[in-house]
Amino acid sequence: MLQSSNAPKQVVVVGGGFGGLRVAKRLAKSPVHTALIDRRNYHLFQPLLYQVATAALSPADIAEPIRRVLRRHQNVRVLLGTVTDIRLAEQRVVWDGGELAYDYLVLSAGATHAYFGNDAWSKRAPGLKTVDDALEIRRRVLLAFEAAEMVRDPDARRAKLTFVVVGGGPTGVELAGALREVASESIPADFRHVDTKTARVILVEGQSRLLPAMSERASTRALADLRDMGVEVRLNTLVTDIDDEAVKLGDERLPAANVIWAAGVRASSLGRKLGVELDRAGRVIVHPDCSVPGHPNVFAIGDMAAQVDADTKSPVPGVAQGALQMGDFVANVIDHEVKYGNARRGAFRYRDKGSMATIGRARAVADIGRQSIGGLLAWLLWSLIHVAFLISFRNRAFVMFNWIWNYAVRTKGARLITGGNPPALDRERSRSAPPRAHRTETAAQAPTKT
Amino acid sequence: MLQSSNAPKQVVVVGGGFGGLRVAKRLAKSPVHTALIDRRNYHLFQPLLYQVATAALSPADIAEPIRRVLRRHQNVRVLLGTVTDIRLAEQRVVWDGGELAYDYLVLSAGATHAYFGNDAWSKRAPGLKTVDDALEIRRRVLLAFEAAEMVRDPDARRAKLTFVVVGGGPTGVELAGALREVASESIPADFRHVDTKTARVILVEGQSRLLPAMSERASTRALADLRDMGVEVRLNTLVTDIDDEAVKLGDERLPAANVIWAAGVRASSLGRKLGVELDRAGRVIVHPDCSVPGHPNVFAIGDMAAQVDADTKSPVPGVAQGALQMGDFVANVIDHEVKYGNARRGAFRYRDKGSMATIGRARAVADIGRQSIGGLLAWLLWSLIHVAFLISFRNRAFVMFNWIWNYAVRTKGARLITGGNPPALDRERSRSAPPRAHRTETAAQAPTKT
Repeated sequence: MLQSSNAPKQVVVVGGGFGGLRVAKRLAKSPVHTALIDRRNYHLFQPLLYQVATAALSPADIAEPIRRVLRRHQNVRVLLGTVTDIRLAEQRVVWDGGELAYDYLVLSAGATHAYFGNDAWSKRAPGLKTVDDALEIRRRVLLAFEAAEMVRDPDARRAKLTFVVVGGGPTGVELAGALREVASESIPADFRHVDTKTARVILVEGQSRLLPAMSERASTRALADLRDMGVEVRLNTLVTDIDDEAVKLGDERLPAANVIWAAGVRASSLGRKLGVELDRAGRVIVHPDCSVPGHPNVFAIGDMAAQVDADTKSPVPGVAQGALQMGDFVANVIDHEVKYGNARRGAFRYRDKGSMATIGRARAVADIGRQSIGGLLAWLLWSLIHVAFLISFRNRAFVMFNWIWNYAVRTKGARLITGGNPPALDRERSRSAPPRAHRTETAAQAPTKT
Repeated sequence: MLQSSNAPKQVVVVGGGFGGLRVAKRLAKSPVHTALIDRRNYHLFQPLLYQVATAALSPADIAEPIRRVLRRHQNVRVLLGTVTDIRLAEQRVVWDGGELAYDYLVLSAGATHAYFGNDAWSKRAPGLKTVDDALEIRRRVLLAFEAAEMVRDPDARRAKLTFVVVGGGPTGVELAGALREVASESIPADFRHVDTKTARVILVEGQSRLLPAMSERASTRALADLRDMGVEVRLNTLVTDIDDEAVKLGDERLPAANVIWAAGVRASSLGRKLGVELDRAGRVIVHPDCSVPGHPNVFAIGDMAAQVDADTKSPVPGVAQGALQMGDFVANVIDHEVKYGNARRGAFRYRDKGSMATIGRARAVADIGRQSIGGLLAWLLWSLIHVAFLISFRNRAFVMFNWIWNYAVRTKGARLITGGNPPALDRERSRSAPPRAHRTETAAQAPTKT
């Protein structure tokens, strides 16, 4: 719809992740009206999602309602809904609540996990992108230990206690480390028959080293730390199949009840609606100013954008920092144009503030500039940065409290199996349960660790 | 199966609520082996469940894995599963993991909500007994406000903003008060089009007063406080029907998108397996020693038991205190008999430590002995008792922190819409959405409260 020239410009932001939220906040003082639309009502601090999956944190500890984050930004409206189409010619966004006309459009819908054409694996090997993903993984992991306590058949029990994490990036490394801690430190005392310490946690990486995006030194340190903790790391190993009972690594068939997918992401399918060139990961190949080729008033940022640093020409990594910085950049471009009319736009430059990954209790790796550190120092730095990064004070305080507590007592605070009611243990168990006649137990069964 | 006379006696406890958990703990030092079986892996502090439903707390704040609670009790095994049958003659419990032979059986499977034969209402009017119930109610409540922000049709919006709580007992009173606070204090600033303060919270009670189990004074005070807060209380009012759009109160049809069922409970169906007399609520009518008629080694306690105080002959209320005290009593009976052989059993006496209900911020009512207090004092007392009551220190600290925080900033810490992905707003919205042509919006729409 037509806007009279002096009416405030309309900015539509798709996605309330790091990038989109930053744009909306940065435009608070600009003469624009912003509509931010997201499928969920909360902003998620994704870097800590693995701690929800491993029962250390509750979802509310790492998420905040978008409305609340933006409640003081009176020129921003938050819409809960799904964008179904983008009509570049009409400058309109179609969503399940109607249509939105825009003068500027910012696409920051992020990415989801990709199975490289093996979508059939998704049922058996959930990824970790959303809160619901995390709760499902938590549920499966905890049920696996419960099932292991029940089954008598050693092979079935071993399978229940075998956790395979696919993908040696930060998420995979963090998940593997946390799972190892759950099995070895948090829960052993809680079980009578099964020794959860005997659980196997296997981290599979296709390339020759972990954390390929980080320094060699960090990779080496992460590998050493994980192995020291008891994680089995398989490098140069590809998952060739995942069936109901097992994971196939190369030619080896490994019976494993639990598989978690932390390999490869694919940008939001929204990019495809634009009819412009995408890269292999489905990201929009944007101009140096983050705009979509042929549409200077449409931007793609964060995990949706294939962007390079203007100086080094090296690709901007798919991390929070990249999304935040692109968000700042685009917000400034829009702010400048609506205030002073079109001007020559600069090119996006990525300031690498360093990258890090936590491995376990008092273990992490961090690359800062040319420096690469590990161990407790890196872990403290990691904790500090991530906690400080959390959006609201409340969350900060909670997470810190929770961490201190977990660190002190080596437990996990959120070990609840929710959803599905009663827990779907039955199928698993019956599959490995001997006939009834042999199953009669008495409470007397000695608490022997097997 | 047969036990040699000097083998430790087998105790099977069904249900890890207040009563069952207490029995297992109390028998820790007895020469028995205990198996505690529950459908869920956690003990739930039900008195605070309404705070999960109203987005103040996370499930993990008020629940603790049963295994963890009992981890130091080496003579206790925890089984995650569902009991499907009880074979009194063979002294066996059948569950989906096999069978358990027992010398003593303690039934403490609690109760669920009852719709008095209108089970069709359950889909529209969820009850509040489990964590999943609470998350579903939270989800619906939060989505209702989101939908209200979207719809343009005033009637549809009013329906979205109408919350009906059925049942004027503690749960209903606490839910109504908390919902009123969410709408009036926690979220108004977060919305642009809708004024959430205009939301209606209606509490429906069939009897002539709220909190029928408490003193007249408490009822009067609760009524006054709720009305003062803006809750519409309808006494002597029966729900005659609940359809997709509305609730029927007597002959009045009240369009309401949100209905929560807090009226009436029914004991676990397990009681029916015993073939003994049950009361109207499906509770086992037990002997003064809490045993099931004709089966001195089988006990029913807590919400599963219809028990009276030995002195006053007045029924023991279905509250945590009742379950805990019956648990103590039964554990002592068992402990005494296994140590010294059968002896004359005493009769259960209920020590009423008082009852209380919270109404809202700094408002509660409490009956202690003949005293009835209200307001801030009662609220502080309520907070103190409930927080102290929480099983693990961690939870205590968390909940206290969370309360202090919410009290300070009048917000709610856990406002996440999870499960269902993307949120199922669509159907609601489209039902009331004008045709597309009229729906094109611009981000400019003034943030007018309507």
